[in-house]
Amino acid sequence: MNEASKDPSFTSRLTKGEVIARPICDHCGFIHYLNPKLIVGAVSTWKNQILLCRRAIEPRRGFWTIPAGFMELNETSEQGAARETWEEATAKIQVDFLLATYSLPHISQVHLLYAARLLNSSIKPGEESLEVGLFSPDEIPWSELAFPTVDWVLKYYLADPSNAFRPPMSTPQTYLSKLENNS
Amino acid sequence: MNEASKDPSFTSRLTKGEVIARPICDHCGFIHYLNPKLIVGAVSTWKNQILLCRRAIEPRRGFWTIPAGFMELNETSEQGAARETWEEATAKIQVDFLLATYSLPHISQVHLLYAARLLNSSIKPGEESLEVGLFSPDEIPWSELAFPTVDWVLKYYLADPSNAFRPPMSTPQTYLSKLENNS
Repeated sequence: MNEASKDPSFTSRLTKGEVIARPICDHCGFIHYLNPKLIVGAVSTWKNQILLCRRAIEPRRGFWTIPAGFMELNETSEQGAARETWEEATAKIQVDFLLATYSLPHISQVHLLYAARLLNSSIKPGEESLEVGLFSPDEIPWSELAFPTVDWVLKYYLADPSNAFRPPMSTPQTYLSKLENNS
Repeated sequence: MNEASKDPSFTSRLTKGEVIARPICDHCGFIHYLNPKLIVGAVSTWKNQILLCRRAIEPRRGFWTIPAGFMELNETSEQGAARETWEEATAKIQVDFLLATYSLPHISQVHLLYAARLLNSSIKPGEESLEVGLFSPDEIPWSELAFPTVDWVLKYYLADPSNAFRPPMSTPQTYLSKLENNS
């Protein structure tokens, strides 16, 4: 097909039944769906201390964050939060419940941030962290936090760390187990 | 650039600092990040009746669902749930709280489903619906629901429609207002 070797050229157009214009290739009609990205992360504690990482990468290199990052294919959001915590702080966690869902429409992100417990106190900077630490509530470096979402979720968590509410339901474990058995 | 007119050819490779292989273009090094998709929707009620739509499109044409669909760029998840409800059932809603976050890792989807109230009883099928209806709890067509997520969330909602729990925090309204003022 000669068509396929042309430079891609996209025009924003409406398709039938759609109310939002999509970039569509002028040559082959390929519809480029752009969707928001999911960020998953966790506020993890060990004996009332909170795990934070100092970022080794831009944006906001040198500032503190909870472990969080882009959710990957073929994982649950809870698994993603645990994976990011391992990658950034070499820490193993048990995810307990959903703390916050933050939409950032200007950058088309949704953050799903969980409350979690460290399984032990072993932590170590991963490739994306300069250092990692456990902070009691009065030691948190509020003026050196990387992002507003980190500030929001830490304050929300600290307002009621007892977790005295019914968490939003998540995917039934029986369903996830069945998927694993089928794969 | 002659390079740009070659057929795209992607090889799955690791980049520095990454632990997951990504499709990377052999010609130009473009990294094709693939991420999970977000589905947003709502269980909307009018005087204890629940809004359902019979699907006019595949998959599961002819089966019943709550209004839900792919979240779009530059909206919040709550706005997305309201938009989908408008597109599929021509219904205006007030989103109240997050009911469920379902990860479906086999198809790399995350569903954010909200509890909501219809602002009035005016409903009408949109382009993607054959018909729409308001169902009291004992009228729900359980054997004709389109997806497991719809079954789960309806049962979860009906187990405690009173909403007696602290909902997960969402993006602060003051922050969203500031974004709108800046744009």
